[in-house]
Amino acid sequence: MPTARPTRPTLEAVAAHAGVSRATVSRVVNGGAGVRAEVRERVRRSVRALGYAPNIAARSLVTRRTGAVAVVIAEPESRVFTDPFFSRQLRGIGRELARHDTQSLLMLQERDEDHERIGRYLAGGHVDGALMFSLHGPPPGAAAVRAGLPTVYGGRPGWPGADADPGLSYVDADNAGGARLAVTHLLAAGRRRIAVLTGPLDQTSAQDRLAGYHEALRAAGLEPEPSLAENGGFTVEGGARAMARLLEREPALDAVFAGSDQMAVGALRSLREAGRRVPGDVAVVGFDDLESAAWTDPPLTTVRQDVEGMGRLMARLLLRRIAAGGAAPGPGEPEPEPGPAGPAEADTGPVITEARLVLRESA
Amino acid sequence: MPTARPTRPTLEAVAAHAGVSRATVSRVVNGGAGVRAEVRERVRRSVRALGYAPNIAARSLVTRRTGAVAVVIAEPESRVFTDPFFSRQLRGIGRELARHDTQSLLMLQERDEDHERIGRYLAGGHVDGALMFSLHGPPPGAAAVRAGLPTVYGGRPGWPGADADPGLSYVDADNAGGARLAVTHLLAAGRRRIAVLTGPLDQTSAQDRLAGYHEALRAAGLEPEPSLAENGGFTVEGGARAMARLLEREPALDAVFAGSDQMAVGALRSLREAGRRVPGDVAVVGFDDLESAAWTDPPLTTVRQDVEGMGRLMARLLLRRIAAGGAAPGPGEPEPEPGPAGPAEADTGPVITEARLVLRESA
Repeated sequence: MPTARPTRPTLEAVAAHAGVSRATVSRVVNGGAGVRAEVRERVRRSVRALGYAPNIAARSLVTRRTGAVAVVIAEPESRVFTDPFFSRQLRGIGRELARHDTQSLLMLQERDEDHERIGRYLAGGHVDGALMFSLHGPPPGAAAVRAGLPTVYGGRPGWPGADADPGLSYVDADNAGGARLAVTHLLAAGRRRIAVLTGPLDQTSAQDRLAGYHEALRAAGLEPEPSLAENGGFTVEGGARAMARLLEREPALDAVFAGSDQMAVGALRSLREAGRRVPGDVAVVGFDDLESAAWTDPPLTTVRQDVEGMGRLMARLLLRRIAAGGAAPGPGEPEPEPGPAGPAEADTGPVITEARLVLRESA
Repeated sequence: MPTARPTRPTLEAVAAHAGVSRATVSRVVNGGAGVRAEVRERVRRSVRALGYAPNIAARSLVTRRTGAVAVVIAEPESRVFTDPFFSRQLRGIGRELARHDTQSLLMLQERDEDHERIGRYLAGGHVDGALMFSLHGPPPGAAAVRAGLPTVYGGRPGWPGADADPGLSYVDADNAGGARLAVTHLLAAGRRRIAVLTGPLDQTSAQDRLAGYHEALRAAGLEPEPSLAENGGFTVEGGARAMARLLEREPALDAVFAGSDQMAVGALRSLREAGRRVPGDVAVVGFDDLESAAWTDPPLTTVRQDVEGMGRLMARLLLRRIAAGGAAPGPGEPEPEPGPAGPAEADTGPVITEARLVLRESA
């Protein structure tokens, strides 16, 4: 490493060093088309000698690609870094983007000011596209998305008007179907007072799992009772507190469908503290099938969604959108490289992945 | 949300819509200096009407600021998302950057290809500066840093030549001093066979904590014994395995200094499994004072470093470097805004924060 901090060398400095024009340096930095090999080599030597870092802000004016993708999660660190759902989804996303030499830029959105700032960033042409998940309302950067920024959502978009937009691309699990499987299983085992722990109901995953619970009960001729539902906020602590409230209000409950494994872990704790045996007194089913589900006491029966696979799919759909939807190159500009599936009108619409029941011991 | 996906409107389209030149639109988008108020308002109406997203790639050619900062962690998701050290450091960084309306872009570096890709990204002019931590070797984007990209490191830089570079800016805890406190405390309590669990020795934090352990032993007239040291990789699992190996090899050990709380948690587990009482048979001291340290069984005596505060400090130093070190604006270009501490030759050098011993029950 050097001992001084010079200001960044400019294009002009490279041009002077190599004895060529600014335009020639620019052409070499952007691939070298139309520049003699001997001159090209001379410019490259000057670039190396001066430690010139080609400004991709300038280069992207030509190619209109940055090689980077925004990954926006609308949750605070305290959730993203404690719920293994997020690291799994991000692993899938990161691996797939890396396979296509694309840099992922993770941004967390917690407060209104984050929403605005991320929106401005997305509008700024810094990224080729965006992945957004765990949204609790309209996405940041709506103007940028409207203006054509390729975007894929994780989870069904739920803000007003989203249903009417056929252009929205998203990946989701079959949340309602998975919930129906869970509750139908509990009913088949003879359970009749089945409680539900929901996630935050401003999220479509929480809404859809609750809807599946309602559907399964009604299909069995039972009417859902509001006193059997509690919001556990998709967290361990929230699940524990919600379970304690349910036990106090409905001591005769004989089963719980928890809308996430994290809440199921909390529910198991509260049930144990209340002296209830699982599954003897109360059967418990979770949702997600995270690593921890196999290690709870007793091991958790749960609905499996392929979280890492969903992350990979989101990244793949986005790369296709970027390849297919980018602005056409102008005269003399390089053709965009084809994406992983080629620039077809390929399947970039909603993809709903299967959710299936994994039987262990808790139900 | 719209139902069609038009291509992004261009500067030209805005110019045509407003009936002005491209250059005028460009001036308005970049602040409007030198444009009559009436024309400025007309252009702004066209920008809104077309949903034009000003391309900050273009704008940054003028202002040379992007409003974003890279945060690079040289660890895989599996560590970043399980060790609370990272979420705490990121919380400090994110909060401080948000206070100055700066977007943080998190990038994880696991493999060589990540190192290269992140290096290219940093060289590309997409960010105003970079924060890098948990490095195991030379940083990515060395060329960009050499070329003047403002950069602040978390932890003492340890690659060859780093010592000789007075321009390097970093924030670290007093790792050696903290380790000396821990081991001196164990010695004062009469412990004599004191083992050590180290982190990965390609990280300076691990090296410095081991050095502090050596110094404290020598100050007490004891010579460090290689058979009392094991690498636990800074993880719970690694700490558990390293402790088991130490117990097998050195059954008479009466204390352990674990170079991180995560390793201490693993060590407590292995000690319990081996039937050793803590602190009766074996005293244990950790390092970090993460939330979990107060909840171990028994509660963990540990060396406290202010991880969130270090994150805040890193962000503050970087914002100062950006304010002080950016390229001077050219003629007609706007002056850079002053940073949080003004563009002084402010303290942007290394900052070493205090580490202190927190006494609980494990030692």
